Amino acid sequence: MSKIELLPKSLPKAIRWEENQLYLLDQTRLPQEAVYERQENERQVWQSIKDLKVRGAPAIGIAAAYGLCAAMAKHKSLGPAEYLETLDRIADYLDSSRPTAVNLRWAMQRMKTTAKSAADQNVENVHAALIEEAEKIHAEDIELCLGMARNGLPLITSGMGILTHCNAGSLATSELGTATAPMYLAHQQGIPFRVYADETRPLLQGARLTAWELQQAGIDITLITDNMAAHLMSEGLIDMVITGTDRVAANGDVANKIGTHGVAILAKHFRIPFYVACPSSTIDLDTATGADIPIEERDPSEVTSLGGVTTAPDGIKVRNPAFDVTPHNLLSGLITEKGLITGNYTEKLKSMFGS
Amino acid sequence: MSKIELLPKSLPKAIRWEENQLYLLDQTRLPQEAVYERQENERQVWQSIKDLKVRGAPAIGIAAAYGLCAAMAKHKSLGPAEYLETLDRIADYLDSSRPTAVNLRWAMQRMKTTAKSAADQNVENVHAALIEEAEKIHAEDIELCLGMARNGLPLITSGMGILTHCNAGSLATSELGTATAPMYLAHQQGIPFRVYADETRPLLQGARLTAWELQQAGIDITLITDNMAAHLMSEGLIDMVITGTDRVAANGDVANKIGTHGVAILAKHFRIPFYVACPSSTIDLDTATGADIPIEERDPSEVTSLGGVTTAPDGIKVRNPAFDVTPHNLLSGLITEKGLITGNYTEKLKSMFGS
Repeated sequence: MSKIELLPKSLPKAIRWEENQLYLLDQTRLPQEAVYERQENERQVWQSIKDLKVRGAPAIGIAAAYGLCAAMAKHKSLGPAEYLETLDRIADYLDSSRPTAVNLRWAMQRMKTTAKSAADQNVENVHAALIEEAEKIHAEDIELCLGMARNGLPLITSGMGILTHCNAGSLATSELGTATAPMYLAHQQGIPFRVYADETRPLLQGARLTAWELQQAGIDITLITDNMAAHLMSEGLIDMVITGTDRVAANGDVANKIGTHGVAILAKHFRIPFYVACPSSTIDLDTATGADIPIEERDPSEVTSLGGVTTAPDGIKVRNPAFDVTPHNLLSGLITEKGLITGNYTEKLKSMFGS
Repeated sequence: MSKIELLPKSLPKAIRWEENQLYLLDQTRLPQEAVYERQENERQVWQSIKDLKVRGAPAIGIAAAYGLCAAMAKHKSLGPAEYLETLDRIADYLDSSRPTAVNLRWAMQRMKTTAKSAADQNVENVHAALIEEAEKIHAEDIELCLGMARNGLPLITSGMGILTHCNAGSLATSELGTATAPMYLAHQQGIPFRVYADETRPLLQGARLTAWELQQAGIDITLITDNMAAHLMSEGLIDMVITGTDRVAANGDVANKIGTHGVAILAKHFRIPFYVACPSSTIDLDTATGADIPIEERDPSEVTSLGGVTTAPDGIKVRNPAFDVTPHNLLSGLITEKGLITGNYTEKLKSMFGS
């Protein structure tokens, strides 16, 4: 099975690393236009992540890794100690761009460890090792997605309706996505199924990104507003829910895009299986429970306007948490690259993913 | 207690009937501008209701009643039989503008019955009786809202957080609103409480209308996107939910703005009381259960764009049901003008509101 054939050729990659330069697809401009921006320095990378030009837990880990390489390129004339010191500072800075997805911290930690392991060599070699590690993180993500595709595939049966929330697709990762990975594989195998995409307010990743990439792949995709999910479930149109995640705690609690918790409760009410696709890069055994995951609160203007159009009265008070936490007891299972986990999350996550 | 003092003076009325002319506040332009449009004929009234320039179950009943008077004014030269025939035709036409809210049918039925009862008089007198009936429907609605205010008031306790969905406020009725009526009364009595308004995609009645009218009234109001409700409930911020309704079936099933069913399920999950405010004009004992209520499916463009901004890829398939049905077993109670009903809906609705 060639993994590349699973994706439509027209679908642009979120991240390109070419001749030691990082190019990020500006996802805030999708689906209207697909424009890449070369990332010149760490401030730009930080801002691109903060502004969701690149988003999705796996993608921001990869982007930060390459971004660190790009930023460190102009520090190769430093002495080894100063180079490492600067690298630590920039890695921590990039890590500060968004708090919830653990992939950012995980990727920066890997990059720091790599640099330290190579610290007895000259700076040129340390820098080369850094780039190699970023490319490794990227290549591994492609394999993680493929693993989730294989392990999630048996869940998709002929004729079923699948609801997904936000974008846990190709645009959120290296290639096949997380929640979408089993869908791309099932589609390639000729299994007929329908997908419903929550538009995912406030920033509409479902409408702009998921609907767009599945439409291009020729998958039967229907867009709904977030508040229609219960009605469609009551109509019997939804047989399964699959979402991605930004961080899975040691007990299996799942942080994901705001609204995921609600969808999980609806699924439980209607006795619809609710699965979360998570690569090992998103599993954080150092965080005990969902209560320990920091939830990013974003700018009120995301809620009070849309594409420059004001949708609410001036001066209105707003809440804008970007994520919520779905307790593990609402999950039917975690789709990981190592297999499907359907209970005893604490033990299984530790035994399968503990160091 | 003067009911008029409960509302801020700056808040425009949804419907004005002045010198035998109907003026509708174009609510699609709120909160940016408050513009009234004089309704010249039945086609314009039909379109104003269809396009949600006037919306909310009680308000569209009142608007159609006045609209019928305005349209019939130019038929006063007809003979009595032709006048009645024309009236029946125009009433049925106005009734066809939106299918879900029962108030439209209810108001048109009242107008037809009034005209028939006066049919032994000259057309001038029949027309005068029509106008009187429309004014009576309007005046009664003010009283119905006040009744719901009184009967819902005991539910609001100091310091609580109340979630509401869509706009069941002053702008959806004659004066105090349905879901908002107890809030306006509690606020006047100095009871401190917080309100959270779901923005209510796709047409944002929560963001544009509820947030705006409660803000003007000085009520502590916070705007959220629809998919944030579960998270706020999990944070303990919501102590009660109150919504309006477009039709209550004989068994207590409630049709209301899309998303209401989902909120009711979330409330049940978190053991939060879920109340629906419904005037008798919205109770339809001729409809046995929620399954018998027609659900309006509206234009896909409402989901794929917002204020002229396209938010989804071209050609994407869309679902756009404007309402959903919340089964009565998810209700904590119905707030009616005759009292609070907290169970045995079939019997109680029949005994309290049966003819």
